[in-house]
Amino acid sequence: MVILIQCKDRVGLVASIAGVMAQQGINIVSMREHVDTEAIRFFTRVVAEHHTDSGLLRELLQKALPEDAIISVNPEPEKKIILLVTKEYHCLSDILIRHHFKTLGASVQCVIGNHEVLKDICDRFEVPFYFIDHESRAKDEFEKNLLEVIRDHSYDYLVLAKFMRILSPQFVELFPTRIVNIHHSFLPAFIGANPYKQAYMRGVKLIGATAHFVTNDLDEGPIIEQQIIPINHTYTAADMVKAGKEIETAVLAKALKMLVEDRVFVYNNKTIVFE
Amino acid sequence: MVILIQCKDRVGLVASIAGVMAQQGINIVSMREHVDTEAIRFFTRVVAEHHTDSGLLRELLQKALPEDAIISVNPEPEKKIILLVTKEYHCLSDILIRHHFKTLGASVQCVIGNHEVLKDICDRFEVPFYFIDHESRAKDEFEKNLLEVIRDHSYDYLVLAKFMRILSPQFVELFPTRIVNIHHSFLPAFIGANPYKQAYMRGVKLIGATAHFVTNDLDEGPIIEQQIIPINHTYTAADMVKAGKEIETAVLAKALKMLVEDRVFVYNNKTIVFE
Amino acid sequence: MVILIQCKDRVGLVASIAGVMAQQGINIVSMREHVDTEAIRFFTRVVAEHHTDSGLLRELLQKALPEDAIISVNPEPEKKIILLVTKEYHCLSDILIRHHFKTLGASVQCVIGNHEVLKDICDRFEVPFYFIDHESRAKDEFEKNLLEVIRDHSYDYLVLAKFMRILSPQFVELFPTRIVNIHHSFLPAFIGANPYKQAYMRGVKLIGATAHFVTNDLDEGPIIEQQIIPINHTYTAADMVKAGKEIETAVLAKALKMLVEDRVFVYNNKTIVFE
Amino acid sequence: MVILIQCKDRVGLVASIAGVMAQQGINIVSMREHVDTEAIRFFTRVVAEHHTDSGLLRELLQKALPEDAIISVNPEPEKKIILLVTKEYHCLSDILIRHHFKTLGASVQCVIGNHEVLKDICDRFEVPFYFIDHESRAKDEFEKNLLEVIRDHSYDYLVLAKFMRILSPQFVELFPTRIVNIHHSFLPAFIGANPYKQAYMRGVKLIGATAHFVTNDLDEGPIIEQQIIPINHTYTAADMVKAGKEIETAVLAKALKMLVEDRVFVYNNKTIVFE
Repeated sequence: MVILIQCKDRVGLVASIAGVMAQQGINIVSMREHVDTEAIRFFTRVVAEHHTDSGLLRELLQKALPEDAIISVNPEPEKKIILLVTKEYHCLSDILIRHHFKTLGASVQCVIGNHEVLKDICDRFEVPFYFIDHESRAKDEFEKNLLEVIRDHSYDYLVLAKFMRILSPQFVELFPTRIVNIHHSFLPAFIGANPYKQAYMRGVKLIGATAHFVTNDLDEGPIIEQQIIPINHTYTAADMVKAGKEIETAVLAKALKMLVEDRVFVYNNKTIVFE
Repeated sequence: MVILIQCKDRVGLVASIAGVMAQQGINIVSMREHVDTEAIRFFTRVVAEHHTDSGLLRELLQKALPEDAIISVNPEPEKKIILLVTKEYHCLSDILIRHHFKTLGASVQCVIGNHEVLKDICDRFEVPFYFIDHESRAKDEFEKNLLEVIRDHSYDYLVLAKFMRILSPQFVELFPTRIVNIHHSFLPAFIGANPYKQAYMRGVKLIGATAHFVTNDLDEGPIIEQQIIPINHTYTAADMVKAGKEIETAVLAKALKMLVEDRVFVYNNKTIVFE
Repeated sequence: MVILIQCKDRVGLVASIAGVMAQQGINIVSMREHVDTEAIRFFTRVVAEHHTDSGLLRELLQKALPEDAIISVNPEPEKKIILLVTKEYHCLSDILIRHHFKTLGASVQCVIGNHEVLKDICDRFEVPFYFIDHESRAKDEFEKNLLEVIRDHSYDYLVLAKFMRILSPQFVELFPTRIVNIHHSFLPAFIGANPYKQAYMRGVKLIGATAHFVTNDLDEGPIIEQQIIPINHTYTAADMVKAGKEIETAVLAKALKMLVEDRVFVYNNKTIVFE
Repeated sequence: MVILIQCKDRVGLVASIAGVMAQQGINIVSMREHVDTEAIRFFTRVVAEHHTDSGLLRELLQKALPEDAIISVNPEPEKKIILLVTKEYHCLSDILIRHHFKTLGASVQCVIGNHEVLKDICDRFEVPFYFIDHESRAKDEFEKNLLEVIRDHSYDYLVLAKFMRILSPQFVELFPTRIVNIHHSFLPAFIGANPYKQAYMRGVKLIGATAHFVTNDLDEGPIIEQQIIPINHTYTAADMVKAGKEIETAVLAKALKMLVEDRVFVYNNKTIVFE
């Protein structure tokens, strides 16, 4: 059982939380606590060993804590995700393999593509694929069709696994801290289009990838995970793209792992990730 | 103020600790808790914002917790260390520089060398250097002289910064979890002498270093920190030694940082390091 | 076109090689040369831009170089591989995905399993799977059956992608520097069975994986690639196994990339890898 | 002996170079060659075992190669450097230690500071320190005084080891590919002032450093080396500065190593680094 709590910081919060747990006879296996002393904000993640009535526990915690406390009690760790893709297979395939062998910690409900090319790999794993062409319809129509598919399924997160369309503010606002994107650079370097070409021209010695929540500031949402790999003068822009796919796959996999294990808080356009 | 507590695990420990803190009006800035569910052992590190009578706090915690609880309350983070060296300058110099510019988080009380060659660099930083020759006296005499110097100084840790003598069980037993060594391989690979020659012969693609507490099993004490660097076929054994010095310096610096910031527990010949 | 040459070192080898190339009007795009000055051994890898009659080129090089020179001229970079597996899916799936999307630089000819469980994932990618049960037949019979399947296919390398049987000396000797294994530790640490359990008991702070050629000294063959990931006290032995799968997958992928791009020499039980 | 050659690419360059070497009876220990196929530019670094009349060798190479060939023959690897600093000790101290113990591969001729605070550490290593105050004189006067000191010493490189003044175009133009700077971010992220504050506000998960040649485009010169370290939500901007110093020190040390070992070419505002 994982419990996530955030609220304005004050003295005695841990005592209140741990008091409720102890009173209910629940042993705490691991606890992480962080106070952002600048924002005066309290964050904690508690892993507890023994299960109980999670609804009651939530109620007792709410009573013991300040009114503004945001509490989530997750008795069931398995999450549900919907993937949005365009043409690139690498992130999608990695997630499908983990889904198929039940090591993702989440279940892929369906895949939506604005191109049809990735239907085949989804079929091979019996994951529903919805093709919604963005060329034959207007943007609002396109997003309306996306929403129809999304609403026909359960989901905790929408994962843009190399989805190459920019979503409208109206769409993004429907899913605050629910849309995750993989960006092909170590943000904030190389914001926008064609980061590998930019990186090649600049002669950088490392390239990276960034997984972040999507907000209405392009490439400016809260960063969940970043990694880089060293490169050198022998890399053409095409080689960088190829090497980049490896790091994009790894970074999105790591970010999803953090999310499905309930390790991520969002506050002030930043994340707290209790690894 | 940093508080470290370990004891047998049971329900309610966090509540007891946090209860004492809240009652004393002490705000918790950050808290890490770990239960070794195999050993049924509880470990916590609490960073608290407001200072108070640390003696009283310790007493109240001891009263609120099981009798076997090992509690340390450190109002003063600055530690004292004594260095033991032989001939190699790299770890020593790095520590002296940080000591000199007051960024070590510890104060170097003195340096003891079984060779005289490193006296000069200590002199340059006005750190007392004691030369105790191991060749002109028997081992027990050598260690008796070491002890005399050590006992004339205050210390939290004895740091073997490339000290190339094996200490006797009688000596080691005087300083349980107080002697830190830097070993020039990623243990348990290449235990014993000449690890770089061994690594060269084996054709490994990475070399490493390990900082560990010294026990009476050679190179078998609790590991605090390990890092590696990639190498390749162009490295001779001599090149590996040279590259190894960089990683040894970095690993010992990291281990010392963890120790002087009170982030390390020892239990069952392993460490818990709350980074 | 990639040219690999190794021979006893002497003055003028590069001049001879480059002379032949220039005389044939072949531009050299990139050249790596290494002399093992201890073994007095010369290794070079030449990437040349313009194609030509590779048989003739090989002949001219042989004539210009010492008799003992081992020369390979590869006009066609695509390699063929056969995979041997047991029950674990992670390395196999990663290779199948790359094979399927034609980014492996090699073509998977077939998969042989001593358990049947991985047949399904091979079927999904239309890669032939041969089940050869090791329990219902003697070891020599088992290996005879392996050989029959292998000989029915073309191959450059046999890849043990988590194949948990030890092959006999008679079998291994048939494929010198042709069998690649992925071992689940940073060799030479934790040779033999259950390395993650060993690592857990020792309390190491990093775990790794090693891809190496198989020889008749168990886990002692030439190392092609090694990588590690940091771990900490929160990892159970089971968590290490899980994290280990990620690093095993990455290390085998990297080693295969080096092999299929003709970047690996073997000499004196070590590799020269021109990355 | 290290030989560096760059020129327009054409067929037969390696043959010409190796031909001259062979004819002089010089054995090649290691050779790296790279062609930038976009720029049609050839780069090679040759390490040769036996020494000879390097002036004659240079002449013979010049005769054998196209007129535009830029050839350097370095019989003596030890370089000379001048350091420019402001107030921060970390890069300077690391370089002074290596200089003192003769493992820098270069000799520090002198240190110039626009503050006086680092004079003490230079004195301790008997390295001349020149204090040139930038506040009491105009910028052109300041740079004139810099030049006077520089011209009184020999140097291969001017190293800005945390020198916090921007040099004028007139000054920079005097030292093309001779001024090396350490920048406290993984460029091109966080160009300009206060990169750690920027990084903190953005909530990045890694921070880095970049060593580059100084040109008249601020922070836009050819990159020699970049590295990063992972950080997390517990890092304040001050913690990032502290962690940044470690990575800055490591990156500048690595870049200097590449330079003093004659491993770096510059072309088209990029570097070729033969590691």
